[in-house]
Amino acid sequence: MSKLNFLFEPKHIAVIGASRSPQKIGFAILDNIIKSGFPGDIYPVNPHEDEIAGYKCYRSIQEIGAPIDQAVISVPVSRSIQVAEECGEAGVKGLVVITAGFKEIGKDGLKQEQQLLEICHRYNMRMLGPNCVGLMDTHTPLNASFAKGFPDEGNISFISQSGAMLVSILDWSFEMGIGFSRFISLGNKADLTEVDFIESCAADPQTKVILCYVEDIADGKRFIEVCSEASKHKPIIILKSGTSSAGAQAASSHTGALAGSDRAYETAFKQCGVLRADSISELFDLARAFSTLPLPRQSRVAIVTNAGGPAIVATDAVEKYGLKMARFTKDTIDKLRNNLPAEANIYNPVDIIGDAKNDRYHFAIEAVLEDQSVDSALVLLCPAAVTEPEKTAETIVTLKNRYSTKPVMAVYMGGKTLAEGKNYLIENAVPTFTFPEPSVRSLQGMFNYAEYIRNIHPPAPVNLSGIDCTAVRKIMNDVLADHRVVLLGHEASAVMAAYGIPVSRSYLARTEEEACQISRNIGLPVVLKISSPRIAHKTDVGGVEIGLHGEDDVKKAFRRIIEKVSYFLPDAPVYGVEVQSMVDDGVEVIIGMSRDIQFGPLLVFGLGGIYVNLIEDVTFRLASALVTEEEVKKMISETKAYTLLKGYRGKKPADLETLTAAILRTARLVTDFEEITEMDINPVRVHTHGATALDVKITIEKKE
Amino acid sequence: MSKLNFLFEPKHIAVIGASRSPQKIGFAILDNIIKSGFPGDIYPVNPHEDEIAGYKCYRSIQEIGAPIDQAVISVPVSRSIQVAEECGEAGVKGLVVITAGFKEIGKDGLKQEQQLLEICHRYNMRMLGPNCVGLMDTHTPLNASFAKGFPDEGNISFISQSGAMLVSILDWSFEMGIGFSRFISLGNKADLTEVDFIESCAADPQTKVILCYVEDIADGKRFIEVCSEASKHKPIIILKSGTSSAGAQAASSHTGALAGSDRAYETAFKQCGVLRADSISELFDLARAFSTLPLPRQSRVAIVTNAGGPAIVATDAVEKYGLKMARFTKDTIDKLRNNLPAEANIYNPVDIIGDAKNDRYHFAIEAVLEDQSVDSALVLLCPAAVTEPEKTAETIVTLKNRYSTKPVMAVYMGGKTLAEGKNYLIENAVPTFTFPEPSVRSLQGMFNYAEYIRNIHPPAPVNLSGIDCTAVRKIMNDVLADHRVVLLGHEASAVMAAYGIPVSRSYLARTEEEACQISRNIGLPVVLKISSPRIAHKTDVGGVEIGLHGEDDVKKAFRRIIEKVSYFLPDAPVYGVEVQSMVDDGVEVIIGMSRDIQFGPLLVFGLGGIYVNLIEDVTFRLASALVTEEEVKKMISETKAYTLLKGYRGKKPADLETLTAAILRTARLVTDFEEITEMDINPVRVHTHGATALDVKITIEKKE
Repeated sequence: MSKLNFLFEPKHIAVIGASRSPQKIGFAILDNIIKSGFPGDIYPVNPHEDEIAGYKCYRSIQEIGAPIDQAVISVPVSRSIQVAEECGEAGVKGLVVITAGFKEIGKDGLKQEQQLLEICHRYNMRMLGPNCVGLMDTHTPLNASFAKGFPDEGNISFISQSGAMLVSILDWSFEMGIGFSRFISLGNKADLTEVDFIESCAADPQTKVILCYVEDIADGKRFIEVCSEASKHKPIIILKSGTSSAGAQAASSHTGALAGSDRAYETAFKQCGVLRADSISELFDLARAFSTLPLPRQSRVAIVTNAGGPAIVATDAVEKYGLKMARFTKDTIDKLRNNLPAEANIYNPVDIIGDAKNDRYHFAIEAVLEDQSVDSALVLLCPAAVTEPEKTAETIVTLKNRYSTKPVMAVYMGGKTLAEGKNYLIENAVPTFTFPEPSVRSLQGMFNYAEYIRNIHPPAPVNLSGIDCTAVRKIMNDVLADHRVVLLGHEASAVMAAYGIPVSRSYLARTEEEACQISRNIGLPVVLKISSPRIAHKTDVGGVEIGLHGEDDVKKAFRRIIEKVSYFLPDAPVYGVEVQSMVDDGVEVIIGMSRDIQFGPLLVFGLGGIYVNLIEDVTFRLASALVTEEEVKKMISETKAYTLLKGYRGKKPADLETLTAAILRTARLVTDFEEITEMDINPVRVHTHGATALDVKITIEKKE
Repeated sequence: MSKLNFLFEPKHIAVIGASRSPQKIGFAILDNIIKSGFPGDIYPVNPHEDEIAGYKCYRSIQEIGAPIDQAVISVPVSRSIQVAEECGEAGVKGLVVITAGFKEIGKDGLKQEQQLLEICHRYNMRMLGPNCVGLMDTHTPLNASFAKGFPDEGNISFISQSGAMLVSILDWSFEMGIGFSRFISLGNKADLTEVDFIESCAADPQTKVILCYVEDIADGKRFIEVCSEASKHKPIIILKSGTSSAGAQAASSHTGALAGSDRAYETAFKQCGVLRADSISELFDLARAFSTLPLPRQSRVAIVTNAGGPAIVATDAVEKYGLKMARFTKDTIDKLRNNLPAEANIYNPVDIIGDAKNDRYHFAIEAVLEDQSVDSALVLLCPAAVTEPEKTAETIVTLKNRYSTKPVMAVYMGGKTLAEGKNYLIENAVPTFTFPEPSVRSLQGMFNYAEYIRNIHPPAPVNLSGIDCTAVRKIMNDVLADHRVVLLGHEASAVMAAYGIPVSRSYLARTEEEACQISRNIGLPVVLKISSPRIAHKTDVGGVEIGLHGEDDVKKAFRRIIEKVSYFLPDAPVYGVEVQSMVDDGVEVIIGMSRDIQFGPLLVFGLGGIYVNLIEDVTFRLASALVTEEEVKKMISETKAYTLLKGYRGKKPADLETLTAAILRTARLVTDFEEITEMDINPVRVHTHGATALDVKITIEKKE
């Protein structure tokens, strides 16, 4: 684990391709480093100059002599490989490669980029970029970028896969009065990625909030490891673009990155405590809230307002975003009643009415912040004739600092009349909004994060006994030897059994007699299903017969199935008919898995049956991070199926313990066997005691 | 239908309670009227003054002598009744009652308010308020309010139930450069309501967009009439707050539980073409878009950008909000390829890359606007070294005006660097945003409205034959005579039959023998259900037996039902057992109704069965506005049930014609009989041919 100090707090920094010409990027970089007040040594490198901006200029990195922590490279792409090699030889620790013309331009560029990376590996150098804007640290201070301007000091780190986004946000931040600790432009992420910088910022004492804009995530597994750990201590907020199918196209043409499915990202973020922003403004609203406020203990919000309408809008937002309106103690209510005008509303939202001056705000805000049943406060102010927006701003700041364990936000609804008060609030670390809704949304983000933190438990080791890997391995080898990738019903049911997942075993019958024999063994009534590697939807071709109570029924059904299938699909190879016990009680659920390129096996759970795709009552988890029974139970509880499982309308509750174990065992199965690419256990019938997997579909791929 | 010209364009205006003292509201009102440049005659009224602000002051309204169009009243509440009376006598056409202390303070105030209203009715005066801020019209011009400032001239009318909201928005509008045609503060809405002002603004040639902030709607029926007509010509955008304070309706039916009071508003807005804003900023984003842009023909958006990341974010938003990324013609693609640098992306989003100056923007924007397959364009600009934000702004304005049938918006991502360009865009009627998402959301609003307009068809008269009102009337009278409000199964099924809604008739059997007799008549197999006014969930108490194939089964089932029910609910009065034919094929749907206080009968349609509340696959319509078969078919198509009805996974399609007729007949039934408060037809089984209502629950109330 590296803090990447040689990038953020280097002692000696070289600028390769430094220039005297203000049009050149090599000028802007050197100029930025100098103007940022960087306290270390600066070494411009340019074979054609002796001196730039008062600094001695070196012909090459070797000529410098001193040990270089960081080399910022802005040379033509044709020279970049050689320059990197020289840096390696000179023992440089980290490269910031500004130069563009690599992976983003196509195959030739990719080749060059791979060469760069190979050099870094060979010399044990790390690299930011190529094709990036650079990086900044306001506390060092260091501006090793070609962006215009240097952010105000602050505690937010912003990591961006888009250089333009970073430059835009920087420009915007001056207007909004947002300060930053670090700005990092990832560029092509050839070596160092968002994960490395999340890790580094997590270790940075000056960073309180980590923001990311990413279009893809390079290493799903490490991302989860790093973020799970980092998010325990600092909020990580990510805007992940390329969510739409159209957006994914744009993403690949932009960075050449492979886009993972958005569901896997969504799930990964949730499971490792990363907050996902839905928009750029939400990203920064959340950043401001986290950077200035304590986490709320619970979800109970108090609102103090001088106007009814906006307070109703805010109250709506509180419900919409899943927070609660605080119910004040009798003490608070008495206090408010005794001190506010008769027309005031003393219940939440506290409406101190239009003629409220600062003193009334002060009294009401303090009263609600003192209340034990209030976890956060929102102050709304509309411009009326006697309103005192500046004085009230001072009051809000004072009380926010006095009640420093509770988040306090302000909504100053208006323009010029309120501008001065608004600025005072922002300068004094009170998140301030023009309209109520985004303030409540930010509170929701804080509450969600606080809940996540509260619910982190050390993973209890899950003991899954009676697992027979060898049996599964053999089945898979047999399937592959048969040149198939889809397991037949009896094979899949054998896999279930080998992993202790309760299943109604199905057996292959090649003849009517075999079918009767099996029926006798497993007990009537039975179900018959066609067994063919080419038939996915068995019911649609008449390949399923249920409720067979006698051997005669079994024989007839066997014949009917074979006849119908050979009529509908004369060319489908038929292996026989699967015979399975009939089970028809219990709640139908689905347990499934699809393997994501970035994040590995993605488990699904939800309402099962033939309408599963229609109803879409499902929830997801990454198997790799699904380690506790608690998490599985939480997963189950997120679905509507849970309402049925708990016992809907007088029914007895279903066996959640067995279901939980089945999900954990499924997770183990798909983790143990990476060749399983897709899997549906649908339906699983969950009984009052026990459960039965009825139909299991497993798709595998050949592993080299 | 009144245009309320005496309020917005009065010739003679009186200010009753005009004052010389700048602290008084009566001063602010007079001052505002004068300063707004009002061209008519102004008459201050105050018995203690001879002259105010250079105007002759009158002792009373009678003293003026001239015909007064509008009297703005700001006198103590104790004097207001008398003043109103005097206005009536003097023949004033309209009152604007600023004075507070009426309904909003409780019972005494309400009484005073009713007196005011009675006076208005008596003298045929109309009244805005009481307890309001006043009104403004920038084109008259007239500022008859006590708000600080007067908005810039524009074409947006803003009607607000909250005075503070209006004042806040006014203050904010100066900063944002938003102009208005009218500002109306509704106050307590004793006489004139949002509906009157929507109607008036619809008739106002200076108003292009009508905005409303409301907390409730006074007259649902008139609201729908007025808005259905007005929205054909002008967009109406409403922010309706108080969604959370919606009290849980006493709901004994599925439909009632699904509906909730906000659902009725949501449905009403949708049915009469009103756009609903989710937040204050969305309200004004939409207002700006509609006020400055033409409606898009279809949903195909072109994006021109100088940076990849923000374009991906915008592309995501296009999909999220249900719009489409335009696919350019070959012509356009060739043109872009031949004129843009090799690194540019010539497909949508068009990325003209970071070194793009104004000329490249000009070329690319014009190319996409010329393309027939582009309906709207979004221009993204991030500050890079050579970017020309001001010149590009001029280009955008020029092209927006040249291609005046296509909406063009701008996203200028940044702060000070882009401020001048941004201002130019706003001044020249290009909706301009800092981040992409809200711009796309606004485009979506425009597209939705355009779609609504396109799909308005003159209502075809629906011919429903074979309706027997008398039979239904008799059943209801009998039920009420039996001191019940819930119809028994056989009664409800008779109501269905009387309205030609296909139903499996159920008949009441008081004895086993009667049950056998009925079974013989209607044909076996049958279903038996307990008949008791006290048992809502029959299955839960063992009150239902299905699949009875022989008379012996019927007898046994009869006994079992009576036994079980008397065991579980010994005190429930039992009328007997309902006998009904067994029907088990077809798709299960629900048709239901719950009556909303404001908007009347609210119909529900969706996936039926016992899980209807769990799955919540439902859609709503107000019966009063559901006049065409097309609308019913659209309603059906909005649900997942539709996927099943169309024939899911190889099944034959269900009989949509019969289902459509059943919904129309249900609408007629609940419109004809206002005493029906709630109704569930669940399930209705829709077959390949025909449909059958199986279980019908109707709740009525006694009408005076």
